[in-house]
Amino acid sequence: MSDARVIIKRDPEREERLVATGTTAADLFDGDRSVVAARVGGVLKDLAYQVADGDEVEPVAMDSADGLDILRHSTAHVMAQAVQELFPEAKLGIGPPIKDGFYYDFDVAVPFTPDDLKSIEKKMQEIIKQGQRFSRRVVADDDARAELAGEPYKLELIGLKGSDATADDGANVEVGGGELTIYDNLNAKTGELCWKDLCRGPHLPTTRNIPAFKLMRSAAAYWRGSEKNKQLQRVYGTAWPSKDALKAHLTFLEEAEKRDHRKLGNELDLFSIPEEIGSGLAVFHPKGGIIRRVMEDYSRRRHEEAGYEFVYTPHATKGKLFELSGHLDWYADGMYPPMQLDEGVDYYLKPMNCPMHNLIYRARGRSYRELPLRLFEFGTVYRYEKSGVVHGLTRARGFTQDDAHIYCTKEQMAGELDSLLTFVLNLLRDYGLEDFYLELSTKDPEKFIGSDEDWEEATETLRKAAEKQNLELVLDPAGAAFYGPKISVQAKDAIGRTWQMSTIQVDFQLPQRFELEYQGADGNRSRPVMIHRALFGSIERFFAVLLEHYAGAFPAWLAPVQVVGIPITDAHIPYLQEVAAKLRAKGIRVEIDMADDRMQKKIRNAQKAKVPYMLLAGDEDASNGAVSFRYRNGEQKNGIPVDEAVAEIVKAVEDRVQV
Amino acid sequence: MSDARVIIKRDPEREERLVATGTTAADLFDGDRSVVAARVGGVLKDLAYQVADGDEVEPVAMDSADGLDILRHSTAHVMAQAVQELFPEAKLGIGPPIKDGFYYDFDVAVPFTPDDLKSIEKKMQEIIKQGQRFSRRVVADDDARAELAGEPYKLELIGLKGSDATADDGANVEVGGGELTIYDNLNAKTGELCWKDLCRGPHLPTTRNIPAFKLMRSAAAYWRGSEKNKQLQRVYGTAWPSKDALKAHLTFLEEAEKRDHRKLGNELDLFSIPEEIGSGLAVFHPKGGIIRRVMEDYSRRRHEEAGYEFVYTPHATKGKLFELSGHLDWYADGMYPPMQLDEGVDYYLKPMNCPMHNLIYRARGRSYRELPLRLFEFGTVYRYEKSGVVHGLTRARGFTQDDAHIYCTKEQMAGELDSLLTFVLNLLRDYGLEDFYLELSTKDPEKFIGSDEDWEEATETLRKAAEKQNLELVLDPAGAAFYGPKISVQAKDAIGRTWQMSTIQVDFQLPQRFELEYQGADGNRSRPVMIHRALFGSIERFFAVLLEHYAGAFPAWLAPVQVVGIPITDAHIPYLQEVAAKLRAKGIRVEIDMADDRMQKKIRNAQKAKVPYMLLAGDEDASNGAVSFRYRNGEQKNGIPVDEAVAEIVKAVEDRVQV
Repeated sequence: MSDARVIIKRDPEREERLVATGTTAADLFDGDRSVVAARVGGVLKDLAYQVADGDEVEPVAMDSADGLDILRHSTAHVMAQAVQELFPEAKLGIGPPIKDGFYYDFDVAVPFTPDDLKSIEKKMQEIIKQGQRFSRRVVADDDARAELAGEPYKLELIGLKGSDATADDGANVEVGGGELTIYDNLNAKTGELCWKDLCRGPHLPTTRNIPAFKLMRSAAAYWRGSEKNKQLQRVYGTAWPSKDALKAHLTFLEEAEKRDHRKLGNELDLFSIPEEIGSGLAVFHPKGGIIRRVMEDYSRRRHEEAGYEFVYTPHATKGKLFELSGHLDWYADGMYPPMQLDEGVDYYLKPMNCPMHNLIYRARGRSYRELPLRLFEFGTVYRYEKSGVVHGLTRARGFTQDDAHIYCTKEQMAGELDSLLTFVLNLLRDYGLEDFYLELSTKDPEKFIGSDEDWEEATETLRKAAEKQNLELVLDPAGAAFYGPKISVQAKDAIGRTWQMSTIQVDFQLPQRFELEYQGADGNRSRPVMIHRALFGSIERFFAVLLEHYAGAFPAWLAPVQVVGIPITDAHIPYLQEVAAKLRAKGIRVEIDMADDRMQKKIRNAQKAKVPYMLLAGDEDASNGAVSFRYRNGEQKNGIPVDEAVAEIVKAVEDRVQV
Repeated sequence: MSDARVIIKRDPEREERLVATGTTAADLFDGDRSVVAARVGGVLKDLAYQVADGDEVEPVAMDSADGLDILRHSTAHVMAQAVQELFPEAKLGIGPPIKDGFYYDFDVAVPFTPDDLKSIEKKMQEIIKQGQRFSRRVVADDDARAELAGEPYKLELIGLKGSDATADDGANVEVGGGELTIYDNLNAKTGELCWKDLCRGPHLPTTRNIPAFKLMRSAAAYWRGSEKNKQLQRVYGTAWPSKDALKAHLTFLEEAEKRDHRKLGNELDLFSIPEEIGSGLAVFHPKGGIIRRVMEDYSRRRHEEAGYEFVYTPHATKGKLFELSGHLDWYADGMYPPMQLDEGVDYYLKPMNCPMHNLIYRARGRSYRELPLRLFEFGTVYRYEKSGVVHGLTRARGFTQDDAHIYCTKEQMAGELDSLLTFVLNLLRDYGLEDFYLELSTKDPEKFIGSDEDWEEATETLRKAAEKQNLELVLDPAGAAFYGPKISVQAKDAIGRTWQMSTIQVDFQLPQRFELEYQGADGNRSRPVMIHRALFGSIERFFAVLLEHYAGAFPAWLAPVQVVGIPITDAHIPYLQEVAAKLRAKGIRVEIDMADDRMQKKIRNAQKAKVPYMLLAGDEDASNGAVSFRYRNGEQKNGIPVDEAVAEIVKAVEDRVQV
């Protein structure tokens, strides 16, 4: 037995160690129960992997991104084993880890019921308790075919090995490239084979390493994602490094579901996505229309104050424009198909507003005196998203960008980016988001236009602007589009989810393609720098983000109904109408509940509608010229003089207070 | 010679007269030089027509609509005669009267030059002086073919007689239905044939009856309007009952051309229609964007006050929606072609907003308590107009309707229509239009849905609402769409042109097709009445109408730049900046001209830009805390204290004063 020299990496430490041949990764990290796998020369391996001379071996903790994937992948295997024990006729599809969990597809005659899922969970608990070992074995293709003769989908995957088995459909989790492997689940004591699956791995050492899991739901799914294939039953589950982490996740899901903008949009009568129009194309009802309009109006006012000029452009155009801009070359898949007019001219819905703003820029000669020129539009664009990925208002097929394009000189770029980023963050704060980090996408050395110098200058300028904000700055190396570097603002919402909000994108390409120019102070023609920026990104999406962030309880300035007047009896209606008139005169949106319901019912209704202020009035209030507040949080304040009440509400709206 | 008994009608008089056989219409009206033709039993005839027993004969004056058509048609003949005398190889197309004039198409090898038009005019003068008689002659088809063997286009028309020769292409002026006729132009003294044309007539008695005419321009035109046919040269002319009327018309044209919104839009940098996007699809530049936004904002505020609720709907939808609404059955020609998504689903750009508003109405159950429900949207629609008829912003392929749909009970309809019409007219007045008449389109008995009762009630309600306005009410019998009666508001602009503005349309059909319902006070389900109404019609078109109405000199509240500060010397710039800050604080749009130009040049520039207020300041003003006004009309007012000046401007904007 000769020795092997290996390096153990635990960032930033590197430890060199001489070990006996046959030493496994598990041996190296023995005693550290958080470690579930090893990364050897950058490749994930089971802990059973025997280290070789020269290996660099890194521990993979269960709570790291890779560790969670392995945990969830192993849990998927346990689920599949449980299913086949309970439903022996079930044929296996694929079973990859996904965000926060995993799934496995099965070909079964009858879809799983909620009771089935409970039985499967119970069976999984048994398998986990048994501590079956995950054991890797390399097989020749033909042997694998023979072993898996009863699994038609696995046979198909063997045929795909190294060809079109992609991460998208999870098939590479099964077969990957390179050698074909099978994972056996072996009895902890006897070593007997309990179950097996074609799989690239790696896996946990034993099923006992699964600390906490839950099956979530089942749904139909086409084999390999294509409607042409057979429909299988997909079971989703989640798995976590601790029972507490699982519990936290389930609580989060419950909270997220309560806040789901599609659900709230319906409950609060804000918007709908009628089947007759099509998925991804929403209509805003009157109450949603108010919120949206207030969002737009405030943004517009702030943009006007910041020197933006407002333009309007159409939603359709000749394809010629997108040939000029290049969109038909590199964005055609994201566009709606053409409409042919006038015998042979193709018209397209616009997926972006920039080409049209460029036409406005070049509609006449421009002088340096006019720069920076900031053209703004609430521009509705249409993009083709596959029906599978469309999701409510957050991923739609038609949406309105708060889109601006800034044309400036090179010398103005630094100042412009700097003030832009401050402007953007302050405006997002005004809408109630507070927790941000920034992401800087830099040049892909394989794919870019423009000079290295220009890129460097723009990237450094973006970096400096970002650093001034005292926010976490995450680098996205080589993540920029080919036409320029970008900063994006990531915002966390009330339950900790991150949403990509504003983007600020420098563009070296379009000014060139459109031959944009300005006459400098020296009389010479120069090319302006172009900055694309959207702050909300999409108004519809931002609307959804705020709706979920506030769980529908919008601050008073955004609330569609700001005040509901609730009479103690019908006799107090006229008095409340006077109060309402005073509020309306100040621009407050107020309703009086004159229904036949009792007062308690009216209070409950206003609470359900998440109205910020209820104003109650009975005999005492009326004779004192007062009202009683009932706030959304249930607090009450009695006998407030009407003028004082009006002033309090008006101030809260003006100051955009978070009620 | 036996006698004939005829009735001479001169509304309201009817005179019965016994005349000798052979008596002509000319004889009946002898002495009245204003009469150019006769209407016999409702049919137009030459004055040379010999009256028959029982005829009812009405004089047609030259300045009546029919009289003007006859004058212009005869002038077209004279022009064609002149052309063939000067260009013997020219072949004749058609030559009908049109609005304010006439044209004639010629097949010539070389297009006419402006000098050619002058020569033709001169030759026409000669022909007119000669007093050639227009003489009607009935011919058999074969004889006509022989006579006109050298005129290939006329031969084609003979073939078309009574078939598809329609008013649209002017061909029926040549051949009409019934018998074929040729008009000979005969020498006044000798009776010799000077020229002839295939024509239905009638015509003036002689060429000498043409009091005043002018040739306007020539342009290419396809034979019978089809691109598949040969291109001819069309010469346009105008003709009038007096030299003064001609002069007035030419002055009007000059004034209209100065006001042409396409010309002003370019000069004032308001909008453009880029070739890259396509005709009928405009982009609004920043200054045009301000006007449009102010127009929209004011309208929105007034609509909010009037109880309208604002919604948003997408621009594209599945075809399914327009099957449900019926648009794909009866409006498909006006729609853009479909875009196919998701393997086989047709999506369309919306030509109208109503179907989507109906989906919002029925998104949930409705109670009588919610009615009238008034849904409003600035909804951009796309309609396919043939490229030949697209005209700037007034006839576009994409435009934004200020579109509302009112859902109410039958009992509410009268009150709603009444207040609606008042609202509409007052709002149009706020934008500066003052001269209106109303048009009421009533049931086409051949083509309507709904009960006679419903129609009668709705029509009477519309009529009563219209009559209350004390405006001229013009009837448009059988002019309603099949789904309900309509009132339209016609407005006259500053130079007397009529524009159709608002329409108020009752609709019996869509509530049925969409199965719209509400729960009545009695608990039963009823169908609401639906009223479509657009006030501007299209914002783009109304923008163009106002631009032409004001000739670009918008009142201060609409002007993109309301005030220009002009320093006497650069030393006075800081002082003017203080003044500007005070104005800006009040929401006034103010610029200071800091260019290197001299003061007089700056004044001229502001005048050219049609800015309502110039504020000038020199040493004296600065030391007195004053400014000098220079108004758009050239008036000046010196040494006005700054606060007074600010107050004057703010008040003019607030009151929407016509400066």
